[in-house]
Amino acid sequence: MSANSKAILETPGKMVFEDCDRPAPGPDEVLVQIARVGMCGSDIHGFKSGPYIPPQPGQEVGLGHEPAGIIADVGENVTDLKVGDRVCLEPGVPCYRCEFCLAGHYNVCPNVDFMATAPNYKGAFAKFITHPAHLTFKLPDSMSLDEGALVEPASVATHAVQMAGNLLGKTAVVLGGGAVGLMVSMVAKMAGARAIVVVDIQERRLEKARELGATAAFSGSDPDVAAKIKDIVGQYGADVVFETAGAIPTVKLGLNVVKRRGKFMIVGTVPGEAPISFLAINREVTMQTVFRYCNSYPTTIELIRSGALDASAIVDKHFDYEDIQEAFEVAANHADTFTKAVVVVDSSLS
Amino acid sequence: MSANSKAILETPGKMVFEDCDRPAPGPDEVLVQIARVGMCGSDIHGFKSGPYIPPQPGQEVGLGHEPAGIIADVGENVTDLKVGDRVCLEPGVPCYRCEFCLAGHYNVCPNVDFMATAPNYKGAFAKFITHPAHLTFKLPDSMSLDEGALVEPASVATHAVQMAGNLLGKTAVVLGGGAVGLMVSMVAKMAGARAIVVVDIQERRLEKARELGATAAFSGSDPDVAAKIKDIVGQYGADVVFETAGAIPTVKLGLNVVKRRGKFMIVGTVPGEAPISFLAINREVTMQTVFRYCNSYPTTIELIRSGALDASAIVDKHFDYEDIQEAFEVAANHADTFTKAVVVVDSSLS
Amino acid sequence: MSANSKAILETPGKMVFEDCDRPAPGPDEVLVQIARVGMCGSDIHGFKSGPYIPPQPGQEVGLGHEPAGIIADVGENVTDLKVGDRVCLEPGVPCYRCEFCLAGHYNVCPNVDFMATAPNYKGAFAKFITHPAHLTFKLPDSMSLDEGALVEPASVATHAVQMAGNLLGKTAVVLGGGAVGLMVSMVAKMAGARAIVVVDIQERRLEKARELGATAAFSGSDPDVAAKIKDIVGQYGADVVFETAGAIPTVKLGLNVVKRRGKFMIVGTVPGEAPISFLAINREVTMQTVFRYCNSYPTTIELIRSGALDASAIVDKHFDYEDIQEAFEVAANHADTFTKAVVVVDSSLS
Amino acid sequence: MSANSKAILETPGKMVFEDCDRPAPGPDEVLVQIARVGMCGSDIHGFKSGPYIPPQPGQEVGLGHEPAGIIADVGENVTDLKVGDRVCLEPGVPCYRCEFCLAGHYNVCPNVDFMATAPNYKGAFAKFITHPAHLTFKLPDSMSLDEGALVEPASVATHAVQMAGNLLGKTAVVLGGGAVGLMVSMVAKMAGARAIVVVDIQERRLEKARELGATAAFSGSDPDVAAKIKDIVGQYGADVVFETAGAIPTVKLGLNVVKRRGKFMIVGTVPGEAPISFLAINREVTMQTVFRYCNSYPTTIELIRSGALDASAIVDKHFDYEDIQEAFEVAANHADTFTKAVVVVDSSLS
Repeated sequence: MSANSKAILETPGKMVFEDCDRPAPGPDEVLVQIARVGMCGSDIHGFKSGPYIPPQPGQEVGLGHEPAGIIADVGENVTDLKVGDRVCLEPGVPCYRCEFCLAGHYNVCPNVDFMATAPNYKGAFAKFITHPAHLTFKLPDSMSLDEGALVEPASVATHAVQMAGNLLGKTAVVLGGGAVGLMVSMVAKMAGARAIVVVDIQERRLEKARELGATAAFSGSDPDVAAKIKDIVGQYGADVVFETAGAIPTVKLGLNVVKRRGKFMIVGTVPGEAPISFLAINREVTMQTVFRYCNSYPTTIELIRSGALDASAIVDKHFDYEDIQEAFEVAANHADTFTKAVVVVDSSLS
Repeated sequence: MSANSKAILETPGKMVFEDCDRPAPGPDEVLVQIARVGMCGSDIHGFKSGPYIPPQPGQEVGLGHEPAGIIADVGENVTDLKVGDRVCLEPGVPCYRCEFCLAGHYNVCPNVDFMATAPNYKGAFAKFITHPAHLTFKLPDSMSLDEGALVEPASVATHAVQMAGNLLGKTAVVLGGGAVGLMVSMVAKMAGARAIVVVDIQERRLEKARELGATAAFSGSDPDVAAKIKDIVGQYGADVVFETAGAIPTVKLGLNVVKRRGKFMIVGTVPGEAPISFLAINREVTMQTVFRYCNSYPTTIELIRSGALDASAIVDKHFDYEDIQEAFEVAANHADTFTKAVVVVDSSLS
Repeated sequence: MSANSKAILETPGKMVFEDCDRPAPGPDEVLVQIARVGMCGSDIHGFKSGPYIPPQPGQEVGLGHEPAGIIADVGENVTDLKVGDRVCLEPGVPCYRCEFCLAGHYNVCPNVDFMATAPNYKGAFAKFITHPAHLTFKLPDSMSLDEGALVEPASVATHAVQMAGNLLGKTAVVLGGGAVGLMVSMVAKMAGARAIVVVDIQERRLEKARELGATAAFSGSDPDVAAKIKDIVGQYGADVVFETAGAIPTVKLGLNVVKRRGKFMIVGTVPGEAPISFLAINREVTMQTVFRYCNSYPTTIELIRSGALDASAIVDKHFDYEDIQEAFEVAANHADTFTKAVVVVDSSLS
Repeated sequence: MSANSKAILETPGKMVFEDCDRPAPGPDEVLVQIARVGMCGSDIHGFKSGPYIPPQPGQEVGLGHEPAGIIADVGENVTDLKVGDRVCLEPGVPCYRCEFCLAGHYNVCPNVDFMATAPNYKGAFAKFITHPAHLTFKLPDSMSLDEGALVEPASVATHAVQMAGNLLGKTAVVLGGGAVGLMVSMVAKMAGARAIVVVDIQERRLEKARELGATAAFSGSDPDVAAKIKDIVGQYGADVVFETAGAIPTVKLGLNVVKRRGKFMIVGTVPGEAPISFLAINREVTMQTVFRYCNSYPTTIELIRSGALDASAIVDKHFDYEDIQEAFEVAANHADTFTKAVVVVDSSLS
């Protein structure tokens, strides 16, 4: 069999490479030569502390779930894709039979096999991986492989905005100006929101938010931030608040600036227990947690292709696959120096 | 002018009676001779600590917002009601012009004039009050005035169930077996829920919940309560959870037993800050706060008339108007001895 | 191999029996010994004129898609069902991969393989058939096999009511008092509708509608039928109208009695072109076509088990499998003499 | 009192001017000096045949309901507007008390007093009219009075798109390239639709649709139009079809190109009876009639202000108030020579 390589989390804090065989695609699968893989906060968390769901003793743990690459082989039933196609991969394989899948919400399938997590911990940091063809999406010629790697986190933004309902003429606040927050702000604009205010504590991110089209961007450290937001969205607050920072202070700020009957979309992962004052939102605010994405890849790819979602503006850091240990160390310790990092698995592919 | 009387909160803990004139109805108003007024938790809170929103210095504060009575006079434009009609009153008068009213959600109108709260603190504990005719609802002959007084809290249940969407064939958990919780369980059954589990810490209330049709009723003190609930509603939890207890332990239990993509309806008023684990609900649970009711009186009256909502089974305590100080003291200190108290303002009316 | 038999449509108007082998279940399938099969209007149409979608020349055409029976064998992967289980079968096998399946609407899957229609025309009128295990539902002990055969058409009623949204306190008109119409009226009642008016042109059916709980039942031949309906549901018409008759006069009546902003659910199959006056419904009426059912079997089975949906009251005619030619001739020519016929394929099963 | 003038429909086909007094605003009203009034299809219909709802014998009938102008006086309670403000008027005054108003749908209020129709037939073609202040909207400085006159029909487009739900990434077909159709196409784009196909039978309109951003524009006379549409929106048809032409052929085309589970928004007024094949849409298509607009003015004004909705590109014909008879004759007989006409009531205002 042909040569392959994958990066494995040996122990928390230590990535190692492992030579392995190139897998053969099943009848409904494709073999993908990986070109780029985005680094996600959950990868960093896994690197530092191990996966959220602990693996079985001795189980091999891969990381990475934001891959783009080139089709290297196709299974016998695959007709929509061919060798050489540039693609991105949707990393979760649901069961399609549980009540959640059948109701159209495969993103909450309890039986999902999602990259880099239980039960299989198969990671995208590898030279070649197989994947179901129907979860492999062809990239438009005009889209780069970097942009392909961004489709996964951008789909979180697309899904969050789609769950927020019709935004035409509505006001939105985006809490957190990281990769997902910035992409939410761009997608919300594309969906017709008339005012979009981004809040972060890093001036660098606020500047980027303004460049990418936010109506305004304020520091969360400003004691008057709620008043400044209301100056723009109106005295009763915003129609929709997207919490993407996953932090208690932003949750509290969100409770303060969401309108009666408004929507508070919880996109970020808030760790531990957040003290919530229900009195702040007892005028029929809807708090909606948002989990990954569902049927979102086609829309996301089109949003990037059309330029509405400028994914390439988000990527501002690259690492080589060979330097993956350094990549994780930098990401773990200096996350505030860039917005989104992509690992170049094969620099010869484009 | 004719004689009238009202009960006023002189200071927290002390109700006094005040003689006053009988008001004349405006052109679009009715004058109502009050017969019965239900006692609500917010009345008790007001009695103990003053209203949630502090009144102006020297401002007169009435209590009570669940009245039923008899039409004693009608304004010149009133054609749908006549002297002698038995009625119940919807206690909040919205502005009808703000964005919330115009969007069909007058219950969150920021300009509402609601009985016993800011800005006017007009209470229902009185012999005669005036009220807009269009917020005065005629009672069917078969409904008692006690049941009329229950339409207000029952409308909270109706509204909560209507906000929860189509319940046909769904599973529901009701946290809290007080008046609102028991009525939510009955309305959810009427709306087609296939299993309804009530949780409370008082065995007396659990027994009542079973009598009134709950599929099961469990003690919240039982360490296995979540498992017992899931034995009935299924391993993934309930489609809808109604929190009516307004307590942190029930909020936490609710987070535990609500299904992925399920709805967690916050009906009770949770005081202070509740520590919420968003991880528990990050599979796209919707947390929906529910505030009062909106366009719910006609449906509620019909539910009571038809027997689907047995309001009279909820009322298990009566006080005389003359004994209002005692009524509030008993309600403040012995709330666990009854489900719902009604003050008989005029025992000659029926 | 073991003996089997199936009924085949030789030519329009002529059913013949064919001896055949008993099929072996695939790894995820079950083999079902058929006990009862309901007769549907589309079967009658197929008998008279051939299937709606013409088969290939020489293609064998079976009829019947409302079967109930006993598990006779299970495939190697099947764990939830065992030999001897009493079951009903959901007759359509969707692809689970198209955009419609993924969005939670497998009932409109363009690739569905549905009994007795293209592409396979496999019918339920047979002694033994195989079926995917996950579309095979166990019957509660208290449910008869006749009721099992009714789960399919009853699911149309369940689905129609679920698509109509929250019916609590709403008014409903059901046009057509056949099997589906009567079941819609029962399910709408279970979902909390406060008034349900059934319209048909056969007095026999109106009488049955009243027995089964309709608020009122009127003849569609009565020139004052619209006024009589509005006497009950209110001057502005009904919140929801269910058209189950599939006829132009009922469509027109429905346009007349549906409320501004109301829902007009098109459940029946209206043949040809129906002349619609859009002016009648231009006050934001929603016309919603309803197609089969989706994820509805568990709810329907529970509705029948609990007694809310009295399926056995609908079945008022039985035929023996051996008399299937007579069964179809009677059904084709005397449909007005009964509500719902069931073919007894094996009278020894219960 | 001060001088005023209004244009009255003397008989079908004949407009006359009438001198009259300038009305005094009520306490909650403003007096508006009219500058521009858009001409609507319903005005033309009224000119040719009289209003849709026949007036009482001898009742004076005005026309016009798309006015913009300058505040000339304000009632004593009016605080948000002042003399000299440039404004547009929402022409329907609902009752705010009926079940439809209370549910947030004042556009279907049965008691509405809408300009140029029953019960009052007050028209906007006048020098001065009074209007409720809360239905009078201030124009941003950058918006012209022509654009102000367009807010009314543009709000139909806004409302139609808002009723169609979240369009992000969806495909849309707009049938009819008149003023409303073109504005629907622009608003749908602003709401995130990824492909918008406009169909009309006039090449002039198709050209304009392309200029204003449609993905494609096809002639409805082309026998292959349905296939051409599906080449762009996909084989299963469009997610949403907006019918704005009010014609039977476009209704039929729409039935042909709307996707299973798609939405068919009926915006145009289809006269008489349209023969509808329900079979074409029986895969759970939603047909939704759309009536006027509701709470749409603020969003529409913002869409025009921001440039997303280029209202000035729609106006391509002007008439002077003094030439109103000619204006109506041209509009009645040569509607195909322009897209939207505006009557200049006072050319000195800007």
